[in-house]
Amino acid sequence: MSGEFDLIARIRERAGGPHAVAGPDGVVLGIGDDAAVLSLPPDRQLVVAMDTLNTGVHFPHDTAPADIGWKALAVNLSDLAAMGATPAWCTLSLSLPAGDRVWIDAFLDGFLGLAEAHRTRLVGGDTTRGPLSVCVTVHGLVAPGAALRRDGAQAGDDIWISGTPGDAAGALAQWKAGAGGDAALRARLDRPTPRTALGIALIGVAHAAIDVSDGLLADLQHLAGASGLAARIDLGALPVSPALRAAFGDDVRYALQATGGDDYELCFAAPSAARAAVIDAGRVSATPVTRIGQLLTGSGVSAWRGDVPWTPPSRGWDHFGRGEAD
Amino acid sequence: MSGEFDLIARIRERAGGPHAVAGPDGVVLGIGDDAAVLSLPPDRQLVVAMDTLNTGVHFPHDTAPADIGWKALAVNLSDLAAMGATPAWCTLSLSLPAGDRVWIDAFLDGFLGLAEAHRTRLVGGDTTRGPLSVCVTVHGLVAPGAALRRDGAQAGDDIWISGTPGDAAGALAQWKAGAGGDAALRARLDRPTPRTALGIALIGVAHAAIDVSDGLLADLQHLAGASGLAARIDLGALPVSPALRAAFGDDVRYALQATGGDDYELCFAAPSAARAAVIDAGRVSATPVTRIGQLLTGSGVSAWRGDVPWTPPSRGWDHFGRGEAD
Repeated sequence: MSGEFDLIARIRERAGGPHAVAGPDGVVLGIGDDAAVLSLPPDRQLVVAMDTLNTGVHFPHDTAPADIGWKALAVNLSDLAAMGATPAWCTLSLSLPAGDRVWIDAFLDGFLGLAEAHRTRLVGGDTTRGPLSVCVTVHGLVAPGAALRRDGAQAGDDIWISGTPGDAAGALAQWKAGAGGDAALRARLDRPTPRTALGIALIGVAHAAIDVSDGLLADLQHLAGASGLAARIDLGALPVSPALRAAFGDDVRYALQATGGDDYELCFAAPSAARAAVIDAGRVSATPVTRIGQLLTGSGVSAWRGDVPWTPPSRGWDHFGRGEAD
Repeated sequence: MSGEFDLIARIRERAGGPHAVAGPDGVVLGIGDDAAVLSLPPDRQLVVAMDTLNTGVHFPHDTAPADIGWKALAVNLSDLAAMGATPAWCTLSLSLPAGDRVWIDAFLDGFLGLAEAHRTRLVGGDTTRGPLSVCVTVHGLVAPGAALRRDGAQAGDDIWISGTPGDAAGALAQWKAGAGGDAALRARLDRPTPRTALGIALIGVAHAAIDVSDGLLADLQHLAGASGLAARIDLGALPVSPALRAAFGDDVRYALQATGGDDYELCFAAPSAARAAVIDAGRVSATPVTRIGQLLTGSGVSAWRGDVPWTPPSRGWDHFGRGEAD
């Protein structure tokens, strides 16, 4: 794009520039050549995830640039967390309608702020003229064979969730309604917390894990399906944030919590014998964890309200992208 | 996006699905989990490049889907080639206005056809609803310290170019003029050839390398600037394809060759003592290589027509993106 080199120079300057020799972070060559060169520690496998955020699909048009930067990296770090991987490096491909230094600096405040918090080095990428779109690839490290997968759950495993699901969907519902939304909920939509430390602490404890991007039931179906199992959750067991409880009645809240997306919490399966170990993993990672159901032989995912099976409302609490795109 | 899972399933099916154990290609876990898990051979560094192609910016709107797929991967493999890296894995983030199986199959024909030719496994990514945009991250491998960089050139080094620069810009000029363009030139614009084998063969031979995406003089400036040197090329030494020579007079052709982008040829610097080794690298990689100039002390890049310094025309032969975006 016109001004591409200035933009790249600015990103390079903010990201810390190239490093001539491999430091403890393994960056042999960072931004500024045709590609980055990275050195992995011995006995580590590479874990790679890639996700794109498009304006109007993955975030409301009025989202602040710093929040866009944060979220674009957060959803990718969340994928690494779901594998139990330790973040190492990322690349960023940014399509922008126009080069705008104020915008890019705000964007980088969010992006690099989260990167620093999770010790993730920005090592490359590109900038392009086009509709606003942010594509990120993250690279993490894991001991050979240790990655948490979706397909490792066993019948009888407990189902756990981190944090308080439904908050992001609650914020989105408020935004769609046009009312002044709750700031605590909106922060959960705009600045999801990648559960990096929890994912790492769950290695050797959990049998399977997934991050909740499309909605708890939908993503749990991915995990149960990959493991060849059925899953049952108890809506009454779902942890609830005070803000979500205050903003919505129970019926709507259950729908938000069970089917709303964008929370980026970890949903994971662990044997009942590991309950103390799961609670300990939550404690060492300072992440709330709650047991919400069980994996069973069979197929399909069901939610229960006490002894009554619950059916989600037909529409309206979908992932933002699908909701707006349809 | 609506239909995202079907689309991902189709890509996964075409790409060969996940692999349970690390094969010779190092894929421990491919498409279908939160992230891919990859196993590097011992004593190899990881080389990572990421580039996005947007419709109307990086390719004409009438480009065939198979050509879009090919080019999106080709421009990334070209970055690996410029580092001398051996391709290993890639991820693909595809934004599409609508899920269209015919389109995606044609796209994958181009993308996966090139991937197979360069032994690059598609291991992950995502699909999103949005304006047509293709973001690719490629991962290659290189022996520690062996990567070809931009900043390694030395004063007195020869400047070399692979292939016949200017063909892609010639095709673009014909497309902009609206005339029925030359098919051989258009193929060079739509289906650039990543110089993978040449890049690998140049390790230990070339001092520095870059791929020509923005134009020969512009990219040579990046190499010379990073190396703290000046560069001088002889326009009369530039290798010319028969199609380009037939289609344009000398003045226009020189402009296309010196400043037109999108060729994805390798421009590299090597000591004069290595001329036989460079020619040998071209021979073993079945890639034409031509000596076109020299690196000198100082700064700046100049092009000469015999003994007369040459100035590019003020506009009109720019990179497609800048040409259209301005």
